Amino acid sequence: MSGTLYGLGIGPGDPDLITIKALRILQAVPVVAYPAPETGDSLARSIVSPHLNGDQQEIPIRMPMLSARFPAQAVYDWAAQEIGSHLEAGSDVAVLCEGDPFFYGSFMYLFGRMAARHTVEVIPGVSSLMACATTLGAPLAGRNDVLMVLPATLSAGELTERLRGVEAVAIIKVGRHFDKVRNVLEALGLCSKARYVEHATMPSQKLLSMDAVDAHSVPYFSMILVHSRGDAWRV
Amino acid sequence: MSGTLYGLGIGPGDPDLITIKALRILQAVPVVAYPAPETGDSLARSIVSPHLNGDQQEIPIRMPMLSARFPAQAVYDWAAQEIGSHLEAGSDVAVLCEGDPFFYGSFMYLFGRMAARHTVEVIPGVSSLMACATTLGAPLAGRNDVLMVLPATLSAGELTERLRGVEAVAIIKVGRHFDKVRNVLEALGLCSKARYVEHATMPSQKLLSMDAVDAHSVPYFSMILVHSRGDAWRV
Repeated sequence: MSGTLYGLGIGPGDPDLITIKALRILQAVPVVAYPAPETGDSLARSIVSPHLNGDQQEIPIRMPMLSARFPAQAVYDWAAQEIGSHLEAGSDVAVLCEGDPFFYGSFMYLFGRMAARHTVEVIPGVSSLMACATTLGAPLAGRNDVLMVLPATLSAGELTERLRGVEAVAIIKVGRHFDKVRNVLEALGLCSKARYVEHATMPSQKLLSMDAVDAHSVPYFSMILVHSRGDAWRV
Repeated sequence: MSGTLYGLGIGPGDPDLITIKALRILQAVPVVAYPAPETGDSLARSIVSPHLNGDQQEIPIRMPMLSARFPAQAVYDWAAQEIGSHLEAGSDVAVLCEGDPFFYGSFMYLFGRMAARHTVEVIPGVSSLMACATTLGAPLAGRNDVLMVLPATLSAGELTERLRGVEAVAIIKVGRHFDKVRNVLEALGLCSKARYVEHATMPSQKLLSMDAVDAHSVPYFSMILVHSRGDAWRV
C-alpha cells in the first residue's frame, strides 16, 4: 500500500488560519516536507509549529536563492525522489504550502513530477489574496468588478498594458520589483488607489500607502492591492 | 461595552474547510446571522451546522429572489439594524460568509452599512476560487501567469474583450449566464481549455467539460476555469 501525498494549504501566516481538515492531516502524517531557504528557518514550518507534536520526520526542501531555473529544478527532482521513497514505503507525506497549494504555489513543481505516479490530495487553504484584503479592511472585489492578479515579475510595459480598465488588481511577488511597480502605478495615476501589504495576518504585518514603503526592504511575501474605489480606503 | 461584528469566512462547502480561528469564534458568539433564501434552508448555515451547539440565537437574512436592486438593499438595511441592536446590547454577532467575506461576498453590503459605527473583525476563509482548483485537480495559476476573475454577469462583448491574452481565468456567478459564457468561449476557441465546476468540495460537487453541462441546471455557486494550458487537464 503506497502512501498519499498531501498538498496542504496552511493559510497565510496566522497559525489559526489553518483549516480543521489540514490540521487533522498535519497531525496524522508521519512525514512532513516544506520549502525552506538555503540556510535558516522555513516560514511554512514556523506557521504550523504550534500544531506540531515533534515526533514526525521532517524534510526541508532547501532552495538556493538563485534566479537561475536549473538549480531549482534539480532541488525539486531531489525532493520528488525523497518524498516518493516515503510514499512507496507506505507513509503518507504532507507538503506544507503557504496560503493555497494551487495559487502560485511552489507545490506545482512537486505536483507536476509526482501526480502521475502517486495518490495526491490537495487541501485548499486561505490564500494571501484573501488575507491581504482582511489586513486592508476593505472588500477585494464585489458586484461586477473584474479582479486581476498580476505577478510583479512582468515587465513595466506588460504591467502598464494589463492595468488599464480593470477595477481591482492584486500585484503579487513584489519583492525587489517594488520600484518598477510603483513607477508604473504613478504613471497611470493609480498610486492613491493602491496600498501595500506585507506579511498579512502575521504579527509582523504592515499596511502602508505607496509613498511610505522603503523599496529596499520589500519581501517576496508582499502584495499591492489597487482598486478603482481605492481613494476611499482609510489607510 | 458594544459587541464585535465578525465577518466569518466559513469556506467553500466542506464543513472541515473552516479555519480553527473561525470555528472558535463561531462557537463562542451568542448570535449568528447568515444569508438565506426567501423560504427554505440557508447554504451558509448548512455548511457550519455540524459545528453549532444549538443554543445560539440565529438571524436568517432572507433575500427575495429578485434582480431589482432596491428590495435587496431594504433587506440589508433591516439586517444592519437587527444585528446592530444585538451589538449595542453587548452581544458579539458572527455573520456567516460562504468562502471569504471580502471576495465577491454579500457581507460587503453589511460592512458598508456598519463598519463606521461598530467594531468589525473579518476572518478570511478558503474561497471558491481555491476550492474549484482543488476540484479541478490542477494549479489555478503559477509562475508569471496573469489570473483574471470575471463575473459572468458582464455582457458577451465585455467578456470577449477581457478574455483575450490572459493565461488563467475564473468566471464566477455563472448560473443563468452559462449559455452566454459558453458561446463567448466557443467563439474564442477556448472551450477545450475550459472546465465547469459546481459546488466544489461539497458532496454534490461536479467537474464537467463544457459540452457536458446542462445550461438549465447551472446554480449560482458554479465556476468556469479557463487556462491556456487547459488542454492538458485530464477531465
